[in-house]
Amino acid sequence: LALAKSNGYVQTGRSISVESLRPSDSFIPRHISNAPACIEGKMAKDCGFESLSELIDKTVPTHIRKQTELDLGQFTEAMTENKFLEHMQELGSKNVVNKNFIGMGYYGTLTPTVILRNLLENPGWYTQYTPYQAEISQGRLESLLNFQTMITDLTGFPMANASLLDEATAAAEAMTMCSAKANGKKPKFLVSDKCHPQTIAVCTSRAEGLGLECVVSPEADFDFSGNDVCGVLLQYPATDGSLNEYGSVIDAAHAVNAKVVMATDLLALTMLTPPGELGADIAIGSSQRFGVPMGYGGPHAAFLATAEEYKRIMPGRVIGTSIDQHGNPALRMAMQTREQHIRREKATSNICTAQALLANIAAMYAVYHGPEGLKQIAGRVHGLAGILAAGAKELGMSVKSDLFFDTVSVNVGGGKAAGVVEAAVAKGYNIRQLDESHVSIAFDETSSLEDVDVLFSVLSGGSASFTAESLAQGVTCNAGGFKRTSDFLTHPVFNTYHSEHEMLRYLARLEAKDLSLCHSMIPLGSCTMKLNATSEMMPITMGEFANMHPFAPEDQAAGYKEMIGNLADILCEVTGFDAMSMQPNSGASGEYAGLMAIRAYHRNNGDYHRNVCIIPVSAHGTNPASAVMSGMKIVTCKTDAQGNVDIEDLKVKVAKNAENLGALMVTYPSTYGVYESRIDEICQIIHDNGGQVYMDGANMNAQVGLTSPGLIGADVCHLNLHKTFAIPHGGGGPGMGPIGVKAHLAPFLPSHPVVPTGAMPAVDEKKPFGCMAAAPHGSSLILAISYAYLVMMGSKGLTKASEHAILNANYMASRLSEDYEILYKGENGTVAHEFILDVRPFKDSANIEAEDIAKRLIDYGYHAPTMSWPVTGTLMVEPTESESKDELDRFCDAMIAIRKEIAMVESGQLDPVNNPLKNAPHTQDVVMAEKWEHPYSREMAAFPIGYLKDFKFWPTTSRVDNVFGDRNLQTTLCCDDISAYAQAE
Amino acid sequence: LALAKSNGYVQTGRSISVESLRPSDSFIPRHISNAPACIEGKMAKDCGFESLSELIDKTVPTHIRKQTELDLGQFTEAMTENKFLEHMQELGSKNVVNKNFIGMGYYGTLTPTVILRNLLENPGWYTQYTPYQAEISQGRLESLLNFQTMITDLTGFPMANASLLDEATAAAEAMTMCSAKANGKKPKFLVSDKCHPQTIAVCTSRAEGLGLECVVSPEADFDFSGNDVCGVLLQYPATDGSLNEYGSVIDAAHAVNAKVVMATDLLALTMLTPPGELGADIAIGSSQRFGVPMGYGGPHAAFLATAEEYKRIMPGRVIGTSIDQHGNPALRMAMQTREQHIRREKATSNICTAQALLANIAAMYAVYHGPEGLKQIAGRVHGLAGILAAGAKELGMSVKSDLFFDTVSVNVGGGKAAGVVEAAVAKGYNIRQLDESHVSIAFDETSSLEDVDVLFSVLSGGSASFTAESLAQGVTCNAGGFKRTSDFLTHPVFNTYHSEHEMLRYLARLEAKDLSLCHSMIPLGSCTMKLNATSEMMPITMGEFANMHPFAPEDQAAGYKEMIGNLADILCEVTGFDAMSMQPNSGASGEYAGLMAIRAYHRNNGDYHRNVCIIPVSAHGTNPASAVMSGMKIVTCKTDAQGNVDIEDLKVKVAKNAENLGALMVTYPSTYGVYESRIDEICQIIHDNGGQVYMDGANMNAQVGLTSPGLIGADVCHLNLHKTFAIPHGGGGPGMGPIGVKAHLAPFLPSHPVVPTGAMPAVDEKKPFGCMAAAPHGSSLILAISYAYLVMMGSKGLTKASEHAILNANYMASRLSEDYEILYKGENGTVAHEFILDVRPFKDSANIEAEDIAKRLIDYGYHAPTMSWPVTGTLMVEPTESESKDELDRFCDAMIAIRKEIAMVESGQLDPVNNPLKNAPHTQDVVMAEKWEHPYSREMAAFPIGYLKDFKFWPTTSRVDNVFGDRNLQTTLCCDDISAYAQAE
Repeated sequence: LALAKSNGYVQTGRSISVESLRPSDSFIPRHISNAPACIEGKMAKDCGFESLSELIDKTVPTHIRKQTELDLGQFTEAMTENKFLEHMQELGSKNVVNKNFIGMGYYGTLTPTVILRNLLENPGWYTQYTPYQAEISQGRLESLLNFQTMITDLTGFPMANASLLDEATAAAEAMTMCSAKANGKKPKFLVSDKCHPQTIAVCTSRAEGLGLECVVSPEADFDFSGNDVCGVLLQYPATDGSLNEYGSVIDAAHAVNAKVVMATDLLALTMLTPPGELGADIAIGSSQRFGVPMGYGGPHAAFLATAEEYKRIMPGRVIGTSIDQHGNPALRMAMQTREQHIRREKATSNICTAQALLANIAAMYAVYHGPEGLKQIAGRVHGLAGILAAGAKELGMSVKSDLFFDTVSVNVGGGKAAGVVEAAVAKGYNIRQLDESHVSIAFDETSSLEDVDVLFSVLSGGSASFTAESLAQGVTCNAGGFKRTSDFLTHPVFNTYHSEHEMLRYLARLEAKDLSLCHSMIPLGSCTMKLNATSEMMPITMGEFANMHPFAPEDQAAGYKEMIGNLADILCEVTGFDAMSMQPNSGASGEYAGLMAIRAYHRNNGDYHRNVCIIPVSAHGTNPASAVMSGMKIVTCKTDAQGNVDIEDLKVKVAKNAENLGALMVTYPSTYGVYESRIDEICQIIHDNGGQVYMDGANMNAQVGLTSPGLIGADVCHLNLHKTFAIPHGGGGPGMGPIGVKAHLAPFLPSHPVVPTGAMPAVDEKKPFGCMAAAPHGSSLILAISYAYLVMMGSKGLTKASEHAILNANYMASRLSEDYEILYKGENGTVAHEFILDVRPFKDSANIEAEDIAKRLIDYGYHAPTMSWPVTGTLMVEPTESESKDELDRFCDAMIAIRKEIAMVESGQLDPVNNPLKNAPHTQDVVMAEKWEHPYSREMAAFPIGYLKDFKFWPTTSRVDNVFGDRNLQTTLCCDDISAYAQAE
Repeated sequence: LALAKSNGYVQTGRSISVESLRPSDSFIPRHISNAPACIEGKMAKDCGFESLSELIDKTVPTHIRKQTELDLGQFTEAMTENKFLEHMQELGSKNVVNKNFIGMGYYGTLTPTVILRNLLENPGWYTQYTPYQAEISQGRLESLLNFQTMITDLTGFPMANASLLDEATAAAEAMTMCSAKANGKKPKFLVSDKCHPQTIAVCTSRAEGLGLECVVSPEADFDFSGNDVCGVLLQYPATDGSLNEYGSVIDAAHAVNAKVVMATDLLALTMLTPPGELGADIAIGSSQRFGVPMGYGGPHAAFLATAEEYKRIMPGRVIGTSIDQHGNPALRMAMQTREQHIRREKATSNICTAQALLANIAAMYAVYHGPEGLKQIAGRVHGLAGILAAGAKELGMSVKSDLFFDTVSVNVGGGKAAGVVEAAVAKGYNIRQLDESHVSIAFDETSSLEDVDVLFSVLSGGSASFTAESLAQGVTCNAGGFKRTSDFLTHPVFNTYHSEHEMLRYLARLEAKDLSLCHSMIPLGSCTMKLNATSEMMPITMGEFANMHPFAPEDQAAGYKEMIGNLADILCEVTGFDAMSMQPNSGASGEYAGLMAIRAYHRNNGDYHRNVCIIPVSAHGTNPASAVMSGMKIVTCKTDAQGNVDIEDLKVKVAKNAENLGALMVTYPSTYGVYESRIDEICQIIHDNGGQVYMDGANMNAQVGLTSPGLIGADVCHLNLHKTFAIPHGGGGPGMGPIGVKAHLAPFLPSHPVVPTGAMPAVDEKKPFGCMAAAPHGSSLILAISYAYLVMMGSKGLTKASEHAILNANYMASRLSEDYEILYKGENGTVAHEFILDVRPFKDSANIEAEDIAKRLIDYGYHAPTMSWPVTGTLMVEPTESESKDELDRFCDAMIAIRKEIAMVESGQLDPVNNPLKNAPHTQDVVMAEKWEHPYSREMAAFPIGYLKDFKFWPTTSRVDNVFGDRNLQTTLCCDDISAYAQAE
């Protein structure tokens, strides 16, 4: 071309490849830290292989390897970050974000922007793990204690947990508590028909697996005569907005020792007498409207509050106060219905997931507004509802109940309700149709007087002769006999941080106490703490996704529908399945849903007896819990010395239960971090005997692109989108647990009473086993995060991620193997994407236990690996593909240095008791104390390795005393507790 | 109404006030921390007044009080946060964001989202002050050192500063350097006509005040024969994209000892031989395209790099390495053309403003991409340009130059250029019209092959017979003889953090080293470090505002136009002026622009001789510097014992200079923190003698709503939007300095060669004195922040803010007055919005100086007040209205505790040398040292007060040794410098 030789210079250009002209903001090397070929190659060699592909070939059994590249259709080629954001804006523009007056547990809310940006959009808050390591988690523990205090104050109960998945599952959990309180001997649970339909549906579905019966009726028809009622569920305010006097039904229930569960609303409780004062036993509900976007259904933090006497059967996590080893106040997780802590076969709940991030937002919302601010908001909402009711009457319509908080049900005339709803939609307003003659209109803090005027014009079918403002003077703010008289949120924490500077700094102070992925890798085995990339997180705070009501007319959610459909297609290809359900909003829910689908399948075949579930001893603890919940009988199967399923034992167990065989639950690669080569044979054995194979998706990060559950032979698998597919752990939730199934199970996937769902892609035959979650597609909002990850990685990137996850694990195992024994390895001496360090020998040699190493790692700036799981007394490490070689090396250096310290204890160079491991972690207080009474140096205590000079993350308490906390259980703020520090001078 | 008595309950509701139904997310109490009446009242009483209004009445002189509330038109009533964000979305939707190929120094760029969210949108990065307190600023100092290193590497010079305002002013600063190098004896500066028009305009305007002449011509016509040329300005690549051989002109310039300034482009320099290797003396340019959004013109970080020999005349701030008192490496500001550091009358530049936040983004962009990533981007951009050129030729058009980097100038045929530009706009593409037959098309990293195809269709007037992709193979990537051969960005910092996790953690590590408003108040006198609210910051990263090219056709910027117009109207009302100019992009630029408007006014009246500027000794140091730059002669006037202008002396000076009196520069309230009651009289004296009154806007936060410059009698005033109007300080920029003027000065407000501006609201007569900044409305993007502040506060909120700023200052002064002398007070014993603590006596009594107290405050978790200004050896405190009483009390407690420490030195209880004040600040290293050799405790060193137990902010270095740094000036990264730590293990 003419470019050659001009201006007297000799041209030496090379011709241009089209490839080099493609957009350069590829996400893949940003996600996979060791993507550059030179690094990858060196690491593979360090592991003893010529190349990464040789390492993979030697690690993943050939006969289950996927032979073709992932075919993701239009998403096969990775999207760049910028293109993805454009794509989401385009999808978002397909959603119609109407003003919502639907209510039903979901309300518009204004997330204070200081909380939005500095908490919800801040990786310092959303990338932490569940606060098992209390010493580096005091920030969110404090916030969660605020949450519990807020819930107890507002509901009038002394105890609350630190959140549940959603209001409907919280109701189901409460039902389970009622049944447990009756020792499972009272099979009926009475549900008021004034509850939200999704709450009724989830309770009904969950009851089935548990052998309970949900009887839904008006409370007036509740029949306690059979002495077979374990509990009742009432809603206050009711789904139609009415405030009903429940005194007599509560008395009747209590008379037969049935427990009373009340579904309620936090904002309403700032005006209304709380359930605790009304005589209920348990209160449940959602804290969504405290600043958490609707997000087309979630994630939100539900709550459950109750009396002290129920604390041992309370589901979920409970934060409590304790002291550390120096007697200073410290917070910790006091209780958890955590699978490994209970007798597996007796589990009644698999709830180990909380919604920490959302609970934190709700708590901070209350901290920011304080009791007076909340009352003001409630007053507005109630006032607007009052004016709407008055106006409806002016228009000659009757109102279903004169006592309400925020929701007014209006009789618009026989057969006219649908038309009124349509007229509202035409003006950009969504209201709810209750029946053919009633609509209900629910107000929230985003509603305005102008909205009421629009609604008047909708109701009147033209323009009303009055305005909302003109009616205001004549309307009274009125809660009738329900008016609350008790104080709430009187603790200083709810009365201090009301200006933005104060809130900003409070958030920053708490954030600084918590170790997150912003600081260093969190190498938790089985938890896949990979990068939660910014571009993945950005769509969740786009208004077009964040502000959708889950029950908005479906045609308003076209963008969501397209995204969820695309996601299902991609996940089907990734898993080798035929259909997905996005409804389960946690991994545990996914497990349960998968088993319920299997159950429904067997029953559909007439095989009501197929209720035996075989579970290897190495299984995730949620597995047996989920099996119990779905009414299965558990049979345990052994594992061999390498951690593989003991096939001989499996055959024995199968043979013994062949007739009743329902399912096998299995994890792949195994929970021991090994690719069992006979997994396909295992599946075949189950299938040959009429069973179904349930695969636990915890270790999908070692499968994507290399093999798949479908390929291996599984019939169903749940996916932890918060592990493999990049949803951040949020400091203890949210997660998402959609399930994939083979075609024969697709008809049985869950549906929803308000927005029917079922298999995606849809199948002709629909026999849903029930409903799993309050919202049709679970926590829809965060599906965008996994979608982002998948489309920005593309086919090649996803496979590469799995390969690098394996590479990184093997690189670390290789570096650490001189100092530690790697407990299980595959046939060629490699590990999968995680590995177990056997630290049990140090107990004898130096009296050092896994916990000592875990706490000592804090001094080195690291979160501990998974402790004592799946093998007691060991540590399991999973690096993920997102960590750089530098970071892996730093962690290995720390582990090796700790091994040297152990050796010094072994050799007597360090004191057997007063040594840096036993005293770990070391706080600033300790290291800066005037007197230093340890036989090792201050520097060894806090700066034992060079890289800490550049950045030191400090634990804020010494090792927390769990025994003291258990003996002095305190789960809400009190005046002399931890938060009093915030006030001190 | 019918609500009464239902369900058997007695109704006790109150009727509803319409007021209570208004949206409840009012911003005012979020911004003004002590807004609640009970707190406000108590504080006023603590100050000795019955109420806040009494305090204000006793403080602000009655005769200059504004008698009516601010009338902000439609914005009088405060907007809630949510309404404001909706309003901005609506304004944003009025902007048409086309794809931009205009170039001219502004390019599309992809801000890596990890940098976007964790730096640009992170208050931990944007709320810090300029890094004067090096010990709590090492994070951004490291980042700015990265910036300097990036600039020196890319330009091929050994030294660079840490950013300037924009490319055009950087060129003007370079011109000033050339003149200074010639000792002001060579009055001509030759400017190539291939420079950007805005660069030419700013140089020409700035030359005038300095008595220089800018001669604009083709380089071939440069005339060096008169020995009167101090320097030349060349552009490389040129504004039309061409790469020109400048060897001979450089030789010719050097032959007569004229200096060569080269305006250049960082991305181009990854491919092209750098100016330093071409023989230039100074390189300038913009780093905008390194990840900083165009923002309709700014803010962006410009750069200036040069040889060592120019370092003493280099404008702006330069970061350098040094050591701390224990010999550890530490960074600091090594040099600053800071007004108070130079002989005021001899100032040649008033540039003390940098664009730290934007420089940090650009530096991090380079860190994230690394040299290879940058080369890849440059290769793409260049490749696309090459294909465009090839295609244009295929279409039979000629290309102006065959050597280019990213911009191709195409001859589209005589008279056809305008039509082609229009056709492009019709397709959503903005290109530049060079002249009637040429268009130029500039590519950037957001451009794609598809874009080139669209441009082909534009050029061909239909559809081309070829595609960009089809041409690619035939095109060569080609920089001719300009091909760069030298390495760049070889330091590890540019070769390590390429994955998102690594970048995230690097950002977090640096952030953690810097004290910001996220931690505690920053009580800097005269700097007004108020809340930078999240809602104020949100619009600046909305695409509709962030991605506008400043030279996009005006009809595409309707949203901006409306916002800027509204802002001008509001500011006119707030200042009492008739017109505003938004062009000056810093306070110093505003001052200069104001004086230039006065100058133009006098000249327009034929008063060429009116060039005397009277400046009180208490003035801001930028005042004399600006006066010198605008060609004025400075006459100093005394102040009295209370810090007021000595009116008798003023009268003498005015009388002496009556004939030539040009202006008075005055600050109100005075820089001493006092409302002079005779300010109106002072203005009258000036006016009576034909002078104009220039008011420095630094203290506007004490005026808004209470009085105004216009009311007092000023003719012109600049506004520091980054002080009074809530733009964050960004860790040392950006700021904005629009000016307001009375009607008679309005015709003289600056315009712009590409987008004419002038007075807002517009006036009929236009006689602009010139052009002040590269972009028509300066740093337009951040105008949204001030706009947000103004409309969310509304008339009442703004006035209340001023009142509370005064309240807070008086409350603190009152609490501190027992322990410290308050240097100046008004007639009734009150201070304005800030006050001076006289700590000079401690020099004699305890050998403690202001600096010792400043550094000791770091141990207490606080940034020091302003030191030694306006009175040497004192501290000036300005709390602003945003700080809570709790926070004010904590700071006072710290100051009182420090006073007790001083007393202990005075009494001999503490050692005169080895005491916590002299040793402050205390780092972790020091406090945790094995050996403690101080006669005070470790606790006294680091935890001298209770609140630190809840949160301790640690300085990362001990007191920095400035003398060592001066003697060993090192202003770029080298292998053994601070950043080597990041690599250490």
